[in-house]
Amino acid sequence: MEHIDLTPEQLAVRILGEARVDSPLGLSSRDGDFIANYVADDDTVVLLHDGKKIEAAVKRGDSLPAFVKAGPRDKIFFSPRRVRAAIVTCGGLCPGINNVIRALVMELHYSYGVESIWGVPYGFRGFIKDYGLPARRLTPDLVKGIHELGGSFLGSSRGPQPTAAIVDWLREKEISILFAIGGDGTLRGAADIDAEVARRGLAVSVVGIPKTIDNDIPYVEKTFGLETAFAVATEAIRSAHTEALGAPGGIGLVKLMGRYSGFIAANAALALNEVNFVLIPEVPFDLEGPKGFLALLKQRLSEKDHAVIVAAEGAGQELFGKRDRASDNSGNRKLGDIGLFLKERIRGYFAGEAMDVTMKYIDPSYLIRSVAAHAADAVYCLQLAQHAVHAGMRGYSGLVVGRWNGQFTYVPLALANSARKFVSPDGELWRAVLEATGQPYRMTNE
Amino acid sequence: MEHIDLTPEQLAVRILGEARVDSPLGLSSRDGDFIANYVADDDTVVLLHDGKKIEAAVKRGDSLPAFVKAGPRDKIFFSPRRVRAAIVTCGGLCPGINNVIRALVMELHYSYGVESIWGVPYGFRGFIKDYGLPARRLTPDLVKGIHELGGSFLGSSRGPQPTAAIVDWLREKEISILFAIGGDGTLRGAADIDAEVARRGLAVSVVGIPKTIDNDIPYVEKTFGLETAFAVATEAIRSAHTEALGAPGGIGLVKLMGRYSGFIAANAALALNEVNFVLIPEVPFDLEGPKGFLALLKQRLSEKDHAVIVAAEGAGQELFGKRDRASDNSGNRKLGDIGLFLKERIRGYFAGEAMDVTMKYIDPSYLIRSVAAHAADAVYCLQLAQHAVHAGMRGYSGLVVGRWNGQFTYVPLALANSARKFVSPDGELWRAVLEATGQPYRMTNE
Amino acid sequence: MEHIDLTPEQLAVRILGEARVDSPLGLSSRDGDFIANYVADDDTVVLLHDGKKIEAAVKRGDSLPAFVKAGPRDKIFFSPRRVRAAIVTCGGLCPGINNVIRALVMELHYSYGVESIWGVPYGFRGFIKDYGLPARRLTPDLVKGIHELGGSFLGSSRGPQPTAAIVDWLREKEISILFAIGGDGTLRGAADIDAEVARRGLAVSVVGIPKTIDNDIPYVEKTFGLETAFAVATEAIRSAHTEALGAPGGIGLVKLMGRYSGFIAANAALALNEVNFVLIPEVPFDLEGPKGFLALLKQRLSEKDHAVIVAAEGAGQELFGKRDRASDNSGNRKLGDIGLFLKERIRGYFAGEAMDVTMKYIDPSYLIRSVAAHAADAVYCLQLAQHAVHAGMRGYSGLVVGRWNGQFTYVPLALANSARKFVSPDGELWRAVLEATGQPYRMTNE
Amino acid sequence: MEHIDLTPEQLAVRILGEARVDSPLGLSSRDGDFIANYVADDDTVVLLHDGKKIEAAVKRGDSLPAFVKAGPRDKIFFSPRRVRAAIVTCGGLCPGINNVIRALVMELHYSYGVESIWGVPYGFRGFIKDYGLPARRLTPDLVKGIHELGGSFLGSSRGPQPTAAIVDWLREKEISILFAIGGDGTLRGAADIDAEVARRGLAVSVVGIPKTIDNDIPYVEKTFGLETAFAVATEAIRSAHTEALGAPGGIGLVKLMGRYSGFIAANAALALNEVNFVLIPEVPFDLEGPKGFLALLKQRLSEKDHAVIVAAEGAGQELFGKRDRASDNSGNRKLGDIGLFLKERIRGYFAGEAMDVTMKYIDPSYLIRSVAAHAADAVYCLQLAQHAVHAGMRGYSGLVVGRWNGQFTYVPLALANSARKFVSPDGELWRAVLEATGQPYRMTNE
Repeated sequence: MEHIDLTPEQLAVRILGEARVDSPLGLSSRDGDFIANYVADDDTVVLLHDGKKIEAAVKRGDSLPAFVKAGPRDKIFFSPRRVRAAIVTCGGLCPGINNVIRALVMELHYSYGVESIWGVPYGFRGFIKDYGLPARRLTPDLVKGIHELGGSFLGSSRGPQPTAAIVDWLREKEISILFAIGGDGTLRGAADIDAEVARRGLAVSVVGIPKTIDNDIPYVEKTFGLETAFAVATEAIRSAHTEALGAPGGIGLVKLMGRYSGFIAANAALALNEVNFVLIPEVPFDLEGPKGFLALLKQRLSEKDHAVIVAAEGAGQELFGKRDRASDNSGNRKLGDIGLFLKERIRGYFAGEAMDVTMKYIDPSYLIRSVAAHAADAVYCLQLAQHAVHAGMRGYSGLVVGRWNGQFTYVPLALANSARKFVSPDGELWRAVLEATGQPYRMTNE
Repeated sequence: MEHIDLTPEQLAVRILGEARVDSPLGLSSRDGDFIANYVADDDTVVLLHDGKKIEAAVKRGDSLPAFVKAGPRDKIFFSPRRVRAAIVTCGGLCPGINNVIRALVMELHYSYGVESIWGVPYGFRGFIKDYGLPARRLTPDLVKGIHELGGSFLGSSRGPQPTAAIVDWLREKEISILFAIGGDGTLRGAADIDAEVARRGLAVSVVGIPKTIDNDIPYVEKTFGLETAFAVATEAIRSAHTEALGAPGGIGLVKLMGRYSGFIAANAALALNEVNFVLIPEVPFDLEGPKGFLALLKQRLSEKDHAVIVAAEGAGQELFGKRDRASDNSGNRKLGDIGLFLKERIRGYFAGEAMDVTMKYIDPSYLIRSVAAHAADAVYCLQLAQHAVHAGMRGYSGLVVGRWNGQFTYVPLALANSARKFVSPDGELWRAVLEATGQPYRMTNE
Repeated sequence: MEHIDLTPEQLAVRILGEARVDSPLGLSSRDGDFIANYVADDDTVVLLHDGKKIEAAVKRGDSLPAFVKAGPRDKIFFSPRRVRAAIVTCGGLCPGINNVIRALVMELHYSYGVESIWGVPYGFRGFIKDYGLPARRLTPDLVKGIHELGGSFLGSSRGPQPTAAIVDWLREKEISILFAIGGDGTLRGAADIDAEVARRGLAVSVVGIPKTIDNDIPYVEKTFGLETAFAVATEAIRSAHTEALGAPGGIGLVKLMGRYSGFIAANAALALNEVNFVLIPEVPFDLEGPKGFLALLKQRLSEKDHAVIVAAEGAGQELFGKRDRASDNSGNRKLGDIGLFLKERIRGYFAGEAMDVTMKYIDPSYLIRSVAAHAADAVYCLQLAQHAVHAGMRGYSGLVVGRWNGQFTYVPLALANSARKFVSPDGELWRAVLEATGQPYRMTNE
Repeated sequence: MEHIDLTPEQLAVRILGEARVDSPLGLSSRDGDFIANYVADDDTVVLLHDGKKIEAAVKRGDSLPAFVKAGPRDKIFFSPRRVRAAIVTCGGLCPGINNVIRALVMELHYSYGVESIWGVPYGFRGFIKDYGLPARRLTPDLVKGIHELGGSFLGSSRGPQPTAAIVDWLREKEISILFAIGGDGTLRGAADIDAEVARRGLAVSVVGIPKTIDNDIPYVEKTFGLETAFAVATEAIRSAHTEALGAPGGIGLVKLMGRYSGFIAANAALALNEVNFVLIPEVPFDLEGPKGFLALLKQRLSEKDHAVIVAAEGAGQELFGKRDRASDNSGNRKLGDIGLFLKERIRGYFAGEAMDVTMKYIDPSYLIRSVAAHAADAVYCLQLAQHAVHAGMRGYSGLVVGRWNGQFTYVPLALANSARKFVSPDGELWRAVLEATGQPYRMTNE
């Protein structure tokens, strides 16, 4: 995403007030003393990376769009002893949620000395009195082992709740910083909360940590859990490949997560390079016809007698009729089930071709999202949480912690909610998939 | 590393000649056609990421230092049918070597149609007639399963061999592209080979893929195998933590790789956040004295009755006397064994303090470097290999494939050989370690 | 199974002829020389283990039923140099098939010096000329790495083929020993082959290695792959438990293999003791009614707000109507899909009860059977293969290699084909499940 | 072990008194009702399995030696509501300890309704007032997650403590059943405790669960943790094999646990059949000389250019001088370090032979014993704990829960303490190793 037209306003985060409190972290502000350094308020991470474009922009006199750089400040907004923090996790499970929760608690407690930390149960529901779910005091001792577990220690749920009621809860509990871990719905909810606390003039910082196993938050290079997800997904690919090799005319078909964005499917296919066809939502394809998927699959089988197919759950939605589709609690449109659909259509096609195939269909589903975070994701979650705490203590609000050009950043919620991130069919990731699978660049008849 | 003073010459790669051959890849050069795109010869990846510094540099009229962007070109230098490629792997094992070998073969064969690919056995030795090791023809069928295995399918060895003899071999075998997978010694060897083929006027492209489990190649964000290494290292940390918890006064001490750079130790400690002290070569510490490591360890044990220590193998070298140290075949200076040293000194110290401790020492050594690459490293290796092939086919030479700001780059060998990359004691990674472990920022008495 | 009424005839294996050839193994026949020993032809493993029953039987003058003990004999039937062996794998995949294939080849080649070993492709089909599948020469070099892979290196297929044609093939290829790795259908086929070679007077040994992931071969304590299968199945249970904990009213439902016998489900529930209900084919249950499963599930949720259910695929078949059910190629009756059935019925029930539940359904299917064998299964496969070779070289035929009372045995095919092994509802395994899950002993209304 | 000469007295367990209380388990005593059954007090598991020997013994009029069969009785000794249970874990860590602790608590609490369960901290030390370690109330909620963790939730320590003081503690706390999880030292301690409570006339049941990763308790087929241990050990073997393949003249040397008994080494070598030499304490070997290990290793390298060696830590002790050796707290004699010894001697030998070898030495040590139990061990631990509770509730004492002929048994402590179990050089396991590795049967010069 080489957007050059973002204004400084679009990249700025809301600031609750001046930073007058000395940070208790005791870090350094100079190099060479063997003590790690603070980050300055005006440190940035530039959005672009292409030298030509950057030079052109600067010479044109444009302001170079850049994110606020994440990190601890030497002066902060809140007095740690008075801070009351709350943590909420929403939406579907994703590897690393517990790492984030634990690291938030540890960073608040040990680095800043915050003692009052509250866990909101079962997502936004936990703010609502009708559900009668009491918040839980979070201490290092309580959370010390949860990073080894998948799932969410706090529980989660789908769907929004009334913003006013949530802010009432925050005020009643005298919360200073709210950490909201969730995906697009949650971050829209967080933006609403941020707007409402601003409207009411409350000194509450709202900090999001983007959680989407589909990796579809824009202006954030990668979201936590993605690496773990595609690592676990390779087990399904290995299984599909083994099954395909083990029977005459073997076809292994794997459905992976990815409602609108095929990052898991694309990466998993690169991680275990035994896949012949990767189908993702971003790249349409035809089933029938001489250049359609089925004909190409037949050709592959004729040559090698086995094939492995990976389909993201949102792939090929254009193949389903325009049925009225229901939505789930989070407002996600119900997708047609591409896995079962392909399974039936492939079966039917080869029956018609009188070709003897043995198809095995694997839908690992929850097996992928419920595992504990693998090592690199654990590192990432830890750092996201540290930076979320730094943001909150500084009095930044209305942001998510992101990553860009390998640097941690603070991204305004409005920007993170502005679109969806896709696998670009023109870009490097998809090119790597095409090269690695050898699949035809286009599987359409026109 | 925010070096602003690199000149365009320092960042340029050697080019064998004009690109007159149409690429057989059949990619696209325009957006929106659902076909992935070529990269242009003048696409770059800028070195800096801080907006203020970039703007200052451009306004000052400085040329903005930037890497050549990696990727397939629509015009290439070599005619694929005439290409003869050779692959060599040198130095110690590292997770992902086989992924790189396999992907080089697959990319050469399937994407470019190169049919003559040779595997050089046991490192640079394989070029030398005296060893009598014949090169081996590499085909997709031969290498198709090796990505599931650790180690090097070609075998490896340490140490340089005469450059002239290597170039003789290349000429005799009519090699067009040499892929050298190895660490600093290997890349210096590759630079020598590149200079010698240039001197002799041979149309040979020398392309390096940096392999160092210590992640210490400069101008390359991360080297393959690092993630796998610190993931496996967490098992040693988990074990050390379990042992420390299981006995009165339990101390778990883990030695990890990292001769000069503590990336594995730092990342492993973040990945499994059960570590209380991380010792890396970049940050000196005292053993004795009121603010030394031993006194601080005692304090930790008094408070919590268990402690976990991770030491990179190169940590604390200043604690050893200035003995004349031998070097291994690769010219690596022999280090004092910090693991055994600490084990003895800790034991002695607590004996002196009459404190009852139970110490368990774990040195996972080869267990870490010999495993197969985990998923994210497998993706990375695959892409490094694809870009190495693109560089070679384009006729670029004297470079390594790198990554910067999340983009693949071509880095001149001279630059990659110019220094060593360290964990900056002032930087973000070390700061994350300090926050996550709670260890004192300085463990020295001054 | 405490069958006391088996006759010596029922327990005897067919013997091709006298053992006149000295074994090339060079083992010992005496204790204390630090060399492992041969097994004598009349060594046995008694069927019973209850002291009272044994004493009663012996005193009554009954012959004590006992299996032939497996192991190498000092005199064998076949001259190793003249032996031509064939290996075939049939039916569904199971962890460990490749370990067995590899160990057969290694034992034949290295221990006995057999040089002519043939792999029959894709199951019994590989014997049939119409399929045009050539057998493949198996050497140590070819199979040396396959134990690290799941699946079958030879490929497999379902269904019988004409016995006469198979025996024609054996005679034409001058096979001396046929190793058949497969489940009940395969072993019935092997029995037919054994009868036919006997009828034709051919000196061919037919040796089975029982392969059924469901562990349902009688007179064999456990079949290979079972441990690996239930180990992998625990990942599905962990996932189901994590999901159940992560949402209000969380229900995790896991379908596991087990068409007629619930060994995988029972063992998996013991291996990861987070399961509240285990449903197996051997123990019928009601869905509806005050003591039915649904009411008990509701009670569990009221108490703990989450529940985990494991259903073997053959469980609750009595709940489906007596529809005419088709059969697959191996003659297996198509089962009703208990997983989807329960999913729908549970959903409907709680909708009716106006209770807010969040159900996650996990069907790991092929993910379980296609993995490589875990360590203990690898040991078991290796030993099964060694004993299979010992049986063949001795000229024993019409048997499978089994295990009883912790000893390896040779079990006549007729016995192994005589019934199916079940989880006894009266026995120890089921009792352990009841104690460990706390599920009601009976979930029926009568 | 085919000991026929055990008397009924030697096989009997101590019984605290008559079983007058109805078991709360509500199991069945008849077949066919779909409810699992109780075990009768006189059910046994016969010691022998060879039909000939059994028949001979019975005909000779000998009483057939048999173990008491483990399992729940319909009448028990203790009133569950009045029971106070204590659990202690001693000695080194072993995979599965936490599974046993958890299952003891769950079985006592949920199956029998025992509410007072105490965890003794840090082994036998926890009974001693001087250490000031308070016991901890164990509840299902407290232990529900510990089966996923390695180590001991209670902590452990080595070495005995005064029996009288321990029994004082038991009486003071009014303990009815003591569960002692430990190895030979612990079980001798338990026998002393059992004798002392008997002498004092206390109604205390002492039940041992044998814990020894070396699997060296006699009359117990296998101890928990063994399977997990050799499974993890295969990772070291895989690493050694990878390293050996990766370098010219590659030697991979792995040291595994096994002070007196080589079960881990033997099984690991079978589980990953890439090992060429297995050295165990039970089979002596020479280093030097034409038939010694070094010469045979050289021969192997000449043929294949790589070799993998697995040495149990107690192997080759006869090669060390008769130095006075110290003992650790548990009274274990300090062994010479065979790993480092072999490493030096191999290096020296090949230096002398002017042969270019590359040796990698791997000592996985605590990495093996500190992991969580794998699935089959988890099942085994669960069942051992269930049977331990059944024994205690029945008022059996002075026993360990064992396994024989695939059945759970109660083995008198005196018998379990009477000897050490070894890998028999004449037996099946060692024979399997010899066949699978191809190593010479004897490596001695005489």
